[in-house]
Amino acid sequence: MRVFLIGMMGSGKSTIGRILSSVLDKEFIDMDLEIERARGTSISEIFEKEGEEEFRRLEKNLLKKLIHRDEIVVSTGGGIILDKENRQILKGENAVYLRLPPADLYRRVTVNGRPLLKEGKESIFRIWEERRELYEQFPSVETSSQSRWETVAAISMKIASGESKVLNSSSHPVSISPGGFKSIGRMPNAVVSRRVERIFSEWIPSSALSIDDGEEAKGFHTLFQVYEYLMDRGLSRSDVLVGAGGGTVTDLVGFASSTFKRGIPLVQYPTTLLAQVDASIGGKNGLNFKGCKNVVGNFYMPSETIIDPVVTLSMDEGRFEEGLVEAFKIFLITGQYYEKFKKLCGKLKERNLAALSEMLEEAVKQKDRIVSMDIRETGLRKVLNLGHTLGHLYEPLSGVSHGMAVAWGLEREMHYFAGLGVIDELLYRDVSDTLSEIVGLDFPQLPVEEALRLLRNDKKAVDSESAEIEIPVVKRPGEFEFLKVRLDDLLAVVV
Amino acid sequence: MRVFLIGMMGSGKSTIGRILSSVLDKEFIDMDLEIERARGTSISEIFEKEGEEEFRRLEKNLLKKLIHRDEIVVSTGGGIILDKENRQILKGENAVYLRLPPADLYRRVTVNGRPLLKEGKESIFRIWEERRELYEQFPSVETSSQSRWETVAAISMKIASGESKVLNSSSHPVSISPGGFKSIGRMPNAVVSRRVERIFSEWIPSSALSIDDGEEAKGFHTLFQVYEYLMDRGLSRSDVLVGAGGGTVTDLVGFASSTFKRGIPLVQYPTTLLAQVDASIGGKNGLNFKGCKNVVGNFYMPSETIIDPVVTLSMDEGRFEEGLVEAFKIFLITGQYYEKFKKLCGKLKERNLAALSEMLEEAVKQKDRIVSMDIRETGLRKVLNLGHTLGHLYEPLSGVSHGMAVAWGLEREMHYFAGLGVIDELLYRDVSDTLSEIVGLDFPQLPVEEALRLLRNDKKAVDSESAEIEIPVVKRPGEFEFLKVRLDDLLAVVV
Repeated sequence: MRVFLIGMMGSGKSTIGRILSSVLDKEFIDMDLEIERARGTSISEIFEKEGEEEFRRLEKNLLKKLIHRDEIVVSTGGGIILDKENRQILKGENAVYLRLPPADLYRRVTVNGRPLLKEGKESIFRIWEERRELYEQFPSVETSSQSRWETVAAISMKIASGESKVLNSSSHPVSISPGGFKSIGRMPNAVVSRRVERIFSEWIPSSALSIDDGEEAKGFHTLFQVYEYLMDRGLSRSDVLVGAGGGTVTDLVGFASSTFKRGIPLVQYPTTLLAQVDASIGGKNGLNFKGCKNVVGNFYMPSETIIDPVVTLSMDEGRFEEGLVEAFKIFLITGQYYEKFKKLCGKLKERNLAALSEMLEEAVKQKDRIVSMDIRETGLRKVLNLGHTLGHLYEPLSGVSHGMAVAWGLEREMHYFAGLGVIDELLYRDVSDTLSEIVGLDFPQLPVEEALRLLRNDKKAVDSESAEIEIPVVKRPGEFEFLKVRLDDLLAVVV
Repeated sequence: MRVFLIGMMGSGKSTIGRILSSVLDKEFIDMDLEIERARGTSISEIFEKEGEEEFRRLEKNLLKKLIHRDEIVVSTGGGIILDKENRQILKGENAVYLRLPPADLYRRVTVNGRPLLKEGKESIFRIWEERRELYEQFPSVETSSQSRWETVAAISMKIASGESKVLNSSSHPVSISPGGFKSIGRMPNAVVSRRVERIFSEWIPSSALSIDDGEEAKGFHTLFQVYEYLMDRGLSRSDVLVGAGGGTVTDLVGFASSTFKRGIPLVQYPTTLLAQVDASIGGKNGLNFKGCKNVVGNFYMPSETIIDPVVTLSMDEGRFEEGLVEAFKIFLITGQYYEKFKKLCGKLKERNLAALSEMLEEAVKQKDRIVSMDIRETGLRKVLNLGHTLGHLYEPLSGVSHGMAVAWGLEREMHYFAGLGVIDELLYRDVSDTLSEIVGLDFPQLPVEEALRLLRNDKKAVDSESAEIEIPVVKRPGEFEFLKVRLDDLLAVVV
């Protein structure tokens, strides 16, 4: 498969192309650089000494060669679409136009090495006017309001096949499907996070309700919006409701579908890595109430969950890493795929789609194994609280994300148990190194006073009589137990 | 078993005693009347001609005779407790003091035939002061703020054994237990309707939350009260929550327990006849939202349901009849106990406890049969909508209770189908007569314009394309089918 990025100079074709190539595991080719390399001279010199026409001839020849190669991401020259035959060729390819308003182009572009701008930067407005109609003959991605990752995600979505692999989890069918998100377009009743709606707007049905994502939204005020939407659309008990978003959206939509008319069918498209790994299995949902997290909720199985790794490409670094931490935690618990994860870690950080798909498939399978043994979350499943004891203390004190806090909590808990001789120092180092590779572990210190106050509250919640709590500890990948520890001993190690 | 009612003149011993005797299936004995009959003269004359002392002697002799009899409800004379030996005897019996503030007594009592009031009605204050301490040695029921039925219920509860018969319904254990309500005293986490709390206060744990019952309360504003109560009490996932009240309370508590911390154990004490018949089986619950009834809810099985017919004695006529209609509907659908119900109807209207217990047991079993075949309410269970098509139209138009509206709807639906020749005219008359016996069928007319407007709304909810809906019809007791009818044809018969 080949991908061609087209668009004006300064629209980010090279930067995006380079990221895209590592995401898609393809070779990156910058046509201008390729021509320069072949000729041993710069584009400017070719323009100056041999004229634009000669450059266009070289460009066309190169294009014709490239379409006989496979597995490449190509950043084209801005003027490639001026030629009719080029346009013809590109229309038969995966060509995506990176659209940007001319004012943005003007701000971003440099005159240096741009022969067409030799009369001044203002020429860009004229050039844009001349080419606009030609560019617009191609599928496009609007990049002005998007981060690089968001643009990469939007392009990848366009070209993804949507092919899916159905994992028959113990509870319901879960598909791993790069591009599978696009099927949401056929679902008339959908609740979608605003972020996802913005980035993937062309696939979101116009009848969808968009809601805020994030912890703030995870309460009855948003639930009521969803109920009203369901009532306005006159849903009956056999109509399917779709949720697409991070954990907040999938939790809200899960709860709403389980309680609207005593339960309507649900299809979930978790769109963050954390939600795909954490929330897509087990049917758990939760709402916050009066400052208590997830105090309201139930268990409700979707009839289908579609996990599309392409959607996760759009996430910012921090959120993406949060998902990797959660996945690593699962592999540490079950011991399966643990070594493989460590090896793939670099590729996963680059968001290589093949690695992501494979890892997600494994994470879903492993999580399912843990959860299916303990569907009502009474015992075994509590092992998933790994890192949460300290993480929960750390989260409000530090202001870092939940995932980051859990990573830190896990690292510190392992450190504590290694110090006690309960676990091997080598295992601790191994986990610590992997967590460092994922998120770095450059955490602010816990303020002692505050931590102690929170600790006292926490202890009260756990057991008002004693300061001992039971926490899970992994003694070897795949081997865990629950140990009673004094929370203040544990805390003493980490403040 | 013998029951002795004691208390001041005018406290209602005879009236309450008479009702109680038919509830408990016992002979009613009014001691004063008994003495008058034996002597062939009035109490006043005995006082006048033979003196109070002689009357007291006769009274004590009668009391000593009565305690050798069985199955009697006795209304004693007001002064019976003046005698030490009498008090001794009564303390070994089920003796209940009907307590009423002297101002209420003054208002209610008549001087006529009351020898002790011959110096004027005001004497009652002095008499009350003299006896007060003696009365208060006995278990009492405060009757001033209560209806007769409430007083009867409170007395019956005091003397009920609490023995229970456990029906193993297909979903969870349901007990039929006269007096079983008293076990709520051992349940620390309980949500109780205000009405039930007022009447049965001595058995309600002080830690209970009391909430309003009724349709108005059946929404998120009350649900939030329940959640806050659960949070304040720091309930964990293994703590049991108890609901005690009518359908609103059992629905609210059912929903709250199913969604608090993803589900905590639930014990239900339905306290209205309708809730006992209708809501105790099947685990359905529902909340109103934005004017839509039961649009939010789920299915959640209690770990136990305790049906106490004694509690239902406290209900007002209309509410009680509503429950009988619901039960009759069930017997009509299954065909079992149908004839028996018709025969028992008189006794049920009198709230005879034995008849009530038997009928409740049958209703629960039959309802369970219907529901267990169709737990997710997708098909068969819809037969329980019998009478609801018209009932739903009628309810808001007439302002009558849900149960009354359903009774009327059922009568009119059967009338309609009899007219079409779909059902036998004799069956229609049979059902109509029984409904008349239960509630009377003296319903206001439907205002045509309003009915048509509601009809249009209703049609929209059912099917926006067509005016046809499918409604259940019973062709013979135990034999039903679903028929498609044009709603406006149906309506034409009833407006």
